[in-house]
Amino acid sequence: MENVEAALFKKGGLTEALGIYVVRLGSSDAVTALTVGRHHLQHHGLIHAGTCATLADHTAGAAASTRILGHQAVLTAEFKVNLLKPASGDQLWCRAEVLRAGKQLHVVESRVYVGVPDDLAQSTMVAVALVTLAVVDAPKDQDEAAS
Amino acid sequence: MENVEAALFKKGGLTEALGIYVVRLGSSDAVTALTVGRHHLQHHGLIHAGTCATLADHTAGAAASTRILGHQAVLTAEFKVNLLKPASGDQLWCRAEVLRAGKQLHVVESRVYVGVPDDLAQSTMVAVALVTLAVVDAPKDQDEAAS
Amino acid sequence: MENVEAALFKKGGLTEALGIYVVRLGSSDAVTALTVGRHHLQHHGLIHAGTCATLADHTAGAAASTRILGHQAVLTAEFKVNLLKPASGDQLWCRAEVLRAGKQLHVVESRVYVGVPDDLAQSTMVAVALVTLAVVDAPKDQDEAAS
Amino acid sequence: MENVEAALFKKGGLTEALGIYVVRLGSSDAVTALTVGRHHLQHHGLIHAGTCATLADHTAGAAASTRILGHQAVLTAEFKVNLLKPASGDQLWCRAEVLRAGKQLHVVESRVYVGVPDDLAQSTMVAVALVTLAVVDAPKDQDEAAS
Repeated sequence: MENVEAALFKKGGLTEALGIYVVRLGSSDAVTALTVGRHHLQHHGLIHAGTCATLADHTAGAAASTRILGHQAVLTAEFKVNLLKPASGDQLWCRAEVLRAGKQLHVVESRVYVGVPDDLAQSTMVAVALVTLAVVDAPKDQDEAAS
Repeated sequence: MENVEAALFKKGGLTEALGIYVVRLGSSDAVTALTVGRHHLQHHGLIHAGTCATLADHTAGAAASTRILGHQAVLTAEFKVNLLKPASGDQLWCRAEVLRAGKQLHVVESRVYVGVPDDLAQSTMVAVALVTLAVVDAPKDQDEAAS
Repeated sequence: MENVEAALFKKGGLTEALGIYVVRLGSSDAVTALTVGRHHLQHHGLIHAGTCATLADHTAGAAASTRILGHQAVLTAEFKVNLLKPASGDQLWCRAEVLRAGKQLHVVESRVYVGVPDDLAQSTMVAVALVTLAVVDAPKDQDEAAS
Repeated sequence: MENVEAALFKKGGLTEALGIYVVRLGSSDAVTALTVGRHHLQHHGLIHAGTCATLADHTAGAAASTRILGHQAVLTAEFKVNLLKPASGDQLWCRAEVLRAGKQLHVVESRVYVGVPDDLAQSTMVAVALVTLAVVDAPKDQDEAAS
C-alpha cells in the first residue's frame, strides 16, 4: 500500500496542487480528503464542481488501484458526477468503492462529503459519481514521466 | 459579455488556480483554454482527467451563461465526461455549445482538445462531456461570496 | 401508494410492454422486477442494455415519486448507467433509492440485479445507474394523455 | 454491411419488440428509426425515456460495429443520456457517430430526434447520449444464442 499511496498521491501534479491526501486505503475502497481553500472555489464562493469531480475521480483511481496486479495501472475512461447540493465547509472528503473489478474495466462509485473525513455521522454528502477505469499495462517511463 | 467574462473567469478560485482563460464568448457557445503546466498532470505525466473535467464543466457554465437573464445564474447539476485518449500538449482548450436552453435546465456539450485554441484543424479532441446546469436566481451575496 | 403504483405501472405503455411490475414501494425507495423473455434480449442472447436502462430509469421514477407533493410529477432529465457484467437469468430486478430530494431536482441511484427480487443474498448486481429527475407540475391531461 | 445489419437488427429481441429498423449504415456512423406506438410511451403519453435510451444505445452499437474486425463484437459498457424536451411524434430516429475508435473501447455520440428520419431540417432533437462500448471477441455461440 505504501507504493500505491506514493504513486497516487505524492507525484501527481493536480493532486498536489489541490492538496488531496489519503486518509485510508482498504482492500477494495479508498478514502481521501482536502482542506478547502480559496483555490477550490467557484465565483459564488462555493466549492467548484471541478474540485468535487477531481476528488471523486482521483479517489476512484485509488480504490481501483487496490484491485490490479503489480505491472498494471488504471486510467479513467469516463465518469459522471451529480452535484447534490451547494457545497461549502472546511473539509471535503471522498470514499470510493469498487463495484466491479473486471479484466479490462473497473467500475467505482465515489461519494463526496463535507464534514469530518471518514466519519459519515458528522458529514453531509454533496456529490456522487460513477467512474469507469481502464486497466492497462503500467507505462514503463512511469517514474520519469512526471518529473 | 464583459460582465459575464469577469464573473466567470476573474473571481473563480479554481479557475484562476488552473489558469483557465476565455478565448471567445458567442451567443450560445464559449471557448476557453489553459497553458499546460505540471499542476495539471497526473502521476504518469498526462493531463489529469480532473483538469479536462474542470475545463469542460467551466466552459459549459460560460456557454450556458450566454442564455440566461441578468438576475439569473447557472449551477452545474451534473456532468459526464469521456476521456478519449491520453492527453498531453502545451495548450488544452475547450468549446462548449448549448444544446438545449430550458426554463430550469440547460444542457451543454463540451469538447476538449489539445492543440491551437479555437482551431479545429490544428487540434486533437481528447475529451467530450455532457453537462446539465440548473438555472437559478443569482446569489445576492455574489460579490462578497468569494472574497 | 395505491395511486402512485397505479399511475406508474398500469398505464405506462413501455412499462407494460416490458412486463415491469412493482415489488415494493418504500418512503424513499422502490423495488421493481420483470420476468425475462426473448423480447428483453439483444442479439447475443444477453439481456439488452436498453432493458436494464429502462428498468433503472423507471424504478428511479417510482422512488422519486414517493418524495413529491400530490400535484407534482417527475420527469427524467438524464441518467447514466454502467452495465457491470453480461446479464442473463430468469428475473431482473431493481432497487432505486433517493439520494437527494430537492425542490427542482431529485437524484436517485438504481441498482439492477439478476436473481430473486428484493433478496440481495440471492442476487448478482449487473448494472448501476444515477438518475436526475425534474420535479414538475403534473400534466392536467394526465388521464387522457396515454389513451 | 448486410451482415452487420442482419446481426444487429433482425435477431435482437428488444430491438424487434420496439420495431427499431436501420435507415443507413455509414463508415463511422449509423441512422435508425422506429414508428411510435403506444408501447413506446410513459404514463403521461410522452415517449418513454427508456425508448429514447434504447434507441440511442442500439444505434451507438450499430455505429461502433462499423469500426471493428470480423471476429469482434461490441458490448455497451455504459452510457449517459440527456432527455432534452418532452418527446412526442410519429417517428423517432437516431444518428450515432463514432467519436473515438480505440483498441479496447469505442466512444459514440447518439442524437435522437422526432420528425423525418435522417432529415435534420424536418426534425427536432429530443435526446443526446454518450455511449462507451467494449470491443470484445465475438461470442462463438452468437448464431445460436438468441434462438
